[in-house]
Amino acid sequence: MAGNTFGQIFRLTTFGESHGKAIGGVIDGCPAGLELDLTKIQSELDRRKPGQSAIVTQRKEPDTVEFFSGLFEGKTTGTPIGFAIHNTNQKSKDYSHIKDSYRPSHADYVYDKKYGFRDYRGGGRSSARETASRVVAGAIAKQLLSEVSINAFVSQVGEIKLDRNYSELDFSQIESNPVRCPDPDTALRMEEYIKKIKKQGDTIGGVITGVIQNVPIGLGEPVFDKLHAKLGAAMLSINAVKGFEYGSGFDGVLMKGSEHNDSFNSDGTTTTNRSGGVQGGISNGMDIYFNVAFKPVATVLQAYETINKEGEKVTTQGKGRHDPCVVPRAVPIVEAMAALVMADYYLLARTNKM
Amino acid sequence: MAGNTFGQIFRLTTFGESHGKAIGGVIDGCPAGLELDLTKIQSELDRRKPGQSAIVTQRKEPDTVEFFSGLFEGKTTGTPIGFAIHNTNQKSKDYSHIKDSYRPSHADYVYDKKYGFRDYRGGGRSSARETASRVVAGAIAKQLLSEVSINAFVSQVGEIKLDRNYSELDFSQIESNPVRCPDPDTALRMEEYIKKIKKQGDTIGGVITGVIQNVPIGLGEPVFDKLHAKLGAAMLSINAVKGFEYGSGFDGVLMKGSEHNDSFNSDGTTTTNRSGGVQGGISNGMDIYFNVAFKPVATVLQAYETINKEGEKVTTQGKGRHDPCVVPRAVPIVEAMAALVMADYYLLARTNKM
Amino acid sequence: MAGNTFGQIFRLTTFGESHGKAIGGVIDGCPAGLELDLTKIQSELDRRKPGQSAIVTQRKEPDTVEFFSGLFEGKTTGTPIGFAIHNTNQKSKDYSHIKDSYRPSHADYVYDKKYGFRDYRGGGRSSARETASRVVAGAIAKQLLSEVSINAFVSQVGEIKLDRNYSELDFSQIESNPVRCPDPDTALRMEEYIKKIKKQGDTIGGVITGVIQNVPIGLGEPVFDKLHAKLGAAMLSINAVKGFEYGSGFDGVLMKGSEHNDSFNSDGTTTTNRSGGVQGGISNGMDIYFNVAFKPVATVLQAYETINKEGEKVTTQGKGRHDPCVVPRAVPIVEAMAALVMADYYLLARTNKM
Amino acid sequence: MAGNTFGQIFRLTTFGESHGKAIGGVIDGCPAGLELDLTKIQSELDRRKPGQSAIVTQRKEPDTVEFFSGLFEGKTTGTPIGFAIHNTNQKSKDYSHIKDSYRPSHADYVYDKKYGFRDYRGGGRSSARETASRVVAGAIAKQLLSEVSINAFVSQVGEIKLDRNYSELDFSQIESNPVRCPDPDTALRMEEYIKKIKKQGDTIGGVITGVIQNVPIGLGEPVFDKLHAKLGAAMLSINAVKGFEYGSGFDGVLMKGSEHNDSFNSDGTTTTNRSGGVQGGISNGMDIYFNVAFKPVATVLQAYETINKEGEKVTTQGKGRHDPCVVPRAVPIVEAMAALVMADYYLLARTNKM
Repeated sequence: MAGNTFGQIFRLTTFGESHGKAIGGVIDGCPAGLELDLTKIQSELDRRKPGQSAIVTQRKEPDTVEFFSGLFEGKTTGTPIGFAIHNTNQKSKDYSHIKDSYRPSHADYVYDKKYGFRDYRGGGRSSARETASRVVAGAIAKQLLSEVSINAFVSQVGEIKLDRNYSELDFSQIESNPVRCPDPDTALRMEEYIKKIKKQGDTIGGVITGVIQNVPIGLGEPVFDKLHAKLGAAMLSINAVKGFEYGSGFDGVLMKGSEHNDSFNSDGTTTTNRSGGVQGGISNGMDIYFNVAFKPVATVLQAYETINKEGEKVTTQGKGRHDPCVVPRAVPIVEAMAALVMADYYLLARTNKM
Repeated sequence: MAGNTFGQIFRLTTFGESHGKAIGGVIDGCPAGLELDLTKIQSELDRRKPGQSAIVTQRKEPDTVEFFSGLFEGKTTGTPIGFAIHNTNQKSKDYSHIKDSYRPSHADYVYDKKYGFRDYRGGGRSSARETASRVVAGAIAKQLLSEVSINAFVSQVGEIKLDRNYSELDFSQIESNPVRCPDPDTALRMEEYIKKIKKQGDTIGGVITGVIQNVPIGLGEPVFDKLHAKLGAAMLSINAVKGFEYGSGFDGVLMKGSEHNDSFNSDGTTTTNRSGGVQGGISNGMDIYFNVAFKPVATVLQAYETINKEGEKVTTQGKGRHDPCVVPRAVPIVEAMAALVMADYYLLARTNKM
Repeated sequence: MAGNTFGQIFRLTTFGESHGKAIGGVIDGCPAGLELDLTKIQSELDRRKPGQSAIVTQRKEPDTVEFFSGLFEGKTTGTPIGFAIHNTNQKSKDYSHIKDSYRPSHADYVYDKKYGFRDYRGGGRSSARETASRVVAGAIAKQLLSEVSINAFVSQVGEIKLDRNYSELDFSQIESNPVRCPDPDTALRMEEYIKKIKKQGDTIGGVITGVIQNVPIGLGEPVFDKLHAKLGAAMLSINAVKGFEYGSGFDGVLMKGSEHNDSFNSDGTTTTNRSGGVQGGISNGMDIYFNVAFKPVATVLQAYETINKEGEKVTTQGKGRHDPCVVPRAVPIVEAMAALVMADYYLLARTNKM
Repeated sequence: MAGNTFGQIFRLTTFGESHGKAIGGVIDGCPAGLELDLTKIQSELDRRKPGQSAIVTQRKEPDTVEFFSGLFEGKTTGTPIGFAIHNTNQKSKDYSHIKDSYRPSHADYVYDKKYGFRDYRGGGRSSARETASRVVAGAIAKQLLSEVSINAFVSQVGEIKLDRNYSELDFSQIESNPVRCPDPDTALRMEEYIKKIKKQGDTIGGVITGVIQNVPIGLGEPVFDKLHAKLGAAMLSINAVKGFEYGSGFDGVLMKGSEHNDSFNSDGTTTTNRSGGVQGGISNGMDIYFNVAFKPVATVLQAYETINKEGEKVTTQGKGRHDPCVVPRAVPIVEAMAALVMADYYLLARTNKM
C-alpha cells in the first residue's frame, strides 16, 4: 500500500535510504529451480553504479549485492530472495544546506509535508539510489525470462536525437560507449554535449527507448492491468521520468485508422507494428517498443535561491558529485523494470486457461 | 490479479462484455457517510454515452445505472457499492464477419490466443463499453473529493492542436461543443475535421489534457506507487491510449536543469510548475496536468484484408456505427480515472503519519 | 482492503445488503474454458436458501442467481463473472425495533460506531444473506476443481455429537436429512433437539466438519499463507463462527510427539493423518479435515432488555422468522469457502516451479 | 502471493532460511513519526530466542536485529523498515540424516514435491526460526498501538490446564517463570512436566491464550476480513498451530442463544463478553481473548522409521537440540502476530468514514 512493492506474482519489495546502512529488497514469488548466474546480476549493477565513466557522477559506491536467502546450491528455492547493498560512504557528511532548506524540484518539501520530517541525507528514500535494488531484481527476472530479449538504449539527449528506428540498430553496440547509444556517431555527439553541460554546472534531459523481443503471445491482462499500462507505471516510477509512450505513441495521434492499423500475415504476425507488440493490453508476439522521457536532473552546481523550513528565502550553492544527465545510468533501470513487468505477466499467464 | 480491479483503498472491480446482459462493477472502500448526488453520476454517464452528437457513434444505448447496494438514505454506508448498466441492444446481430476472422489492431487475435476462445460479439470484454463502469465509479470518487477539481478536455485532433496553455482556458466551455475542446474556434475546426474523416469512413487520433486542481499536499507514495505512475497507468488502461506525459513531459527532455527547476515562493508554491504538481511522486499542491495520446479507432468503414482463424486471407468490409474519433467521448473517462487515482491516494494519505 | 474480496488469483468480491435491491458479486481470475453446469450452481444455492425444511427459517427467498458476464457458449471466458441475486421481499417491513436499538450480540452497535450509521433493515450487510454470493462462487470453484472432493456435514448440535470418524461415514447420506448429518440416528436426534429449541423461541450452536479429498500435493504457501491458515480465515469469516481446528486440532495438544507424528508409507502417504492433510502449510495429498464451531444464533424469539442509540435501556421482543440453529444451512457455505481456498491455491501452484 | 507478506497497510514481508546467511524482513506502511524504543524490540526477540531456560532448546543464537532503513533520529520516517537477523551458527553441520530422507510430520516431503528440491539445512524456510522476523515487526506494531495492551500466556501444556479465567490473572507474572504461565503453581507443574517429557526425548503440545485490551471500537472489516478471521489466520500461520478459537469458542456450541448473548450496559459495554470483543467482525471495545492450540514438536530424540527420496524405508535417530514444548517460546510470537493484525486494522479504520 505504501508503494514499496512492485508486481503481484513475481513481487519485489525494496527498502533503504541513500545514506542509511543499506538498501535492498525482497523478491517473493520467483519460481523454484531457476539457476542463477550471480555474475550477471552484479554486472547489471555495475552498469548502474556511479563512477563508471566521465559523464556520470564521480561518487564511489561499489554497489555489491549480498544475498541473504532464497538460493541454495545455485538455484532459487521458491522462497523469498532477500538481499542488501550496503552503503559504504554514508557517514559524516555536511548536509546543512539540505537539512533546513528545500531544493527546487526535489522531493524535500513534499516529504516534510507528507511525513512531518525526513531523512535529508542524500535525499533519503527519494534518491535514485533505491533503483539499485530494482536492478538486482530485474537481473533475476531477466534470467527467469531467458528467451525474452530486453534491451534499452539512449535515443535522445537534449536536442540530439537518434533518428534511426530501433530495428536498424545493433544492440551489441549499446555498451560500447558511455552514453549507451548504439549508434556510434550519435553517441559521440551526445557524450560531448553532456560534457559541455557538465562544465556549465548544469544538467540535461533525455529519452531512453526500450525494446522487448521474443515475447510469448498472451501476456498482459485486458482491462486495468493492460501490459502497456503496467509497463508505463513501471517506467513512470523511475526517478525523473515525465512521460511514456509505446508503439506509435504520441505520433499515432496524427494518423488515420486506415494508416495506423497493422495488417495480419498468415501466421498472426503483422506487416507493420504500430501497435507496439500489444493489442488490447495483451502481447501479440511482435516487438514491444517504447520511449521514456527523463527531465534534467534537478541538482545543478550553481547558486540558486530557495526557501527554508520557515518559508524564508535563502541562497544556496549546489554542490557534490551529481549526474549531468541521468539517462546513461538509467538504461539498466529501464531494462530492469521492463523485466519485472514481463516476469510477473509471464507467471500470471499460467493461470489463464483451464 | 486478472486485472479487473483498480485501486487499493477506494477500489473498483468491473465486469461485463459489450453484448452480454449487463456491465457493471463493485466499489469497495468508499467511506461511509458520503451524500451521493445520483443525478451527477448519471450525467457523467451521459457525457460518455453514444449518440450524443453527430461526431460520435450513433448507436443507441441509454446507459442507465442501477445501484444494488452500499447506499442508504442517500448516503454511502461504507459497504460495497454494487451497480449494473443493463445492455439493452445486445441481441440478434450478425457477427459473422468478426466471429471467425481477426480485425486488424483489435484484440480479437490475442484474446483467442490467450483464452482459447472469445466472446466476439461487439468486441466482448475488449470493447470500450467497459469504461462506462469506470465513469460511474469516477463520478462517486469526484463527489468524495468535492474540494478537488478534476477537468479534462480535447487538446488535439489529428494535426489540429490547441496551442494555448490550460491556464488560459475557460473550463466551463468544455461542454459547450461536441468535441469537448474549451476553445470555441479550435473546437469548430476539430469538429469539421472529424466530420470529414467520418465521411471518408476513416478515423483519427487525438490528445486529451487533464488538469487536477486544489490538490492536498502529500498525496502519492514515493517509490513504485508515485502519484504520476498510477495516473499514467490509469490513463494507459483506457482503450486506444498510446502515451502519457505530465508536467513538462516529453518537452522536458530538451531543457536544462537550471531552466526546468521550479523556484519556491515563500508559501511553498512554485513560480513555475514544470513538475506538474508532483515531486518525487508526491503532490505538492500545485496543479497536476497531463496529456493522454489516443490512436485512431481501429474500426474503419472501408474494405480491408485480414486473416481468419485458420490463417487464411479474407477480405472484409468494416461496418456498423463507430466513433470516427474517440477523444470527445473519452473526456469523462479520463476524468473518471483521474478521480479514482486521487480518491485512493486521498484515503491512503490518512495513514501516513502517527 | 475493506474486506469484501476473498482470494488472490481466483478472487471473489461480494456486495449487497439483506434488504437492498440485490446481493451478488464478481469472480475474477476464473480460468477460461471451464464448462459450467449452471444447474449445479443453483442447486448449491438451494441447499442454503431459507424455507427448505421445518428446522430452518421459514422466510421465502427464491435466491435465483442471474449471471451478467464472463460466460459464453456455456464456458467461462477468462473475464470477470458478474452475478446478482435479486432480493424479492425487501420492502415495507417494520424495522422500528431494530432501527433505534441495538440487538445483543449482533453487529448493530459496532456498525453504528464504525460507520456513523447503518442500513438496519434485516441486519444490512452483516446479515448472513451475504453468504449466498459465496455459495455461487464456491459452486464455480468446485467445478474448477472437479477432481477434488469437498464435503461438509453437521457433526454436533449443542451437546449432541456425532462420535464417528469422518472416514466411517457415507457422505451420500448428508442430504438425506434436514440437519445434514450423514449418520441417520444422530441426525434424527439433532433434528428433534432443534425443534425443541425452536419451540422455546431459543437457538443453539453446532459444529460443521469439512473434508477435502483427492487434493493435489503441493497446494498452499509455506509462511503466512499456509493452506490451513487461509482455510481457517475462510471459515472464521462465516457469520457466527467462533473456532476452527484441523487435523488433530485442540486434541493434538494432549499428545506427545512420538504419538502424534504421522509415519510415511513408501508412496509418501502416511499411516495416520493427524496432520490433517497439511504439513508446513502445504497439502501432502492426504485428506484435509477440519471442524468449525458456530455459536447459537443471536436472534431469540424472547423478550430481552437492551439499549437504544441514546444508551437508554429498552425492552424488546425478538420476532420474525429465524433459524433456531445455523449449521444445517451453513454446510454449503463451509463447502463453498473451502472450494474458494482450494481453487486459489490450485491456480497459484502453477507458478511455483520453473 | 507466495505468502511471505502479512498485512495490508501495516505490512510485513519476511525472508530467510534457518541456516542461510540471515533472516529478516521489510515493514512497509508504518506511519512516520513513531518514536521507536529499540531496546524493547530486542527484548521481545530475547523472549523468543533459544537457550533462555532449561525447558527450551539449548542452541545458541544471539538473535540481534540490525535495522537497515526507515528510522531516522529515533523515529520512523514513513519509508520501509528493512532489517536482518544474521545467522551466526549456520555452518558446517551434518545434515545427512535430513538431506535424503523425510522427517515425519515435518515439511520436508511437501517442499520437495512443491518446489522440486529444498534447502534441507535445519528445515530451511519451514523452520520456526522465521518467526523471529515477525517478533521484530510485532514489537514495532506494539509501539504503534501504545494504548492497546496485548498479552499472551501459556494456559495448557499437555493435560495440565490453567483453569482460571484470564481476568483473574496477573499478567505481570507471565515473565516470572520459564513456562510463561501467570499462575505460579500451574507454571511449576507445567515446567516439571516439560522436563519429564524432555528426558524421554519426547515432546508435548500446549495452548496459548491471548488477550487484547483497550481496543478502540470499530476495528475490523465486516465480511471476509473480520477481525477474528485475520487474527485466526495470523495464529494459524505460526508453526505447529492446529486450532484457534475466540470468545466462547468451541464451548459456545453448547450454549443456547438466550444464554450466550451479551447484554448491553448503558455505555455500550456488555455485562458478559462471550463475543470475545468482536461482533460481526468488528471490535466492540471489550477484551478480545482467544486460544491457540499447538501440536507437539515433530522432532523427537528417539529412533524412528521413515522413507527416503526413493521411497525406501530408513531408520533414523532424532538428534540435535530441540524444544520439548514449543509454547513457552511461542508466547511472544502470538503477541507479535496479534499486534500486526491490530496495527493493520487500526490504520485501515482511519479510512472508514468521511
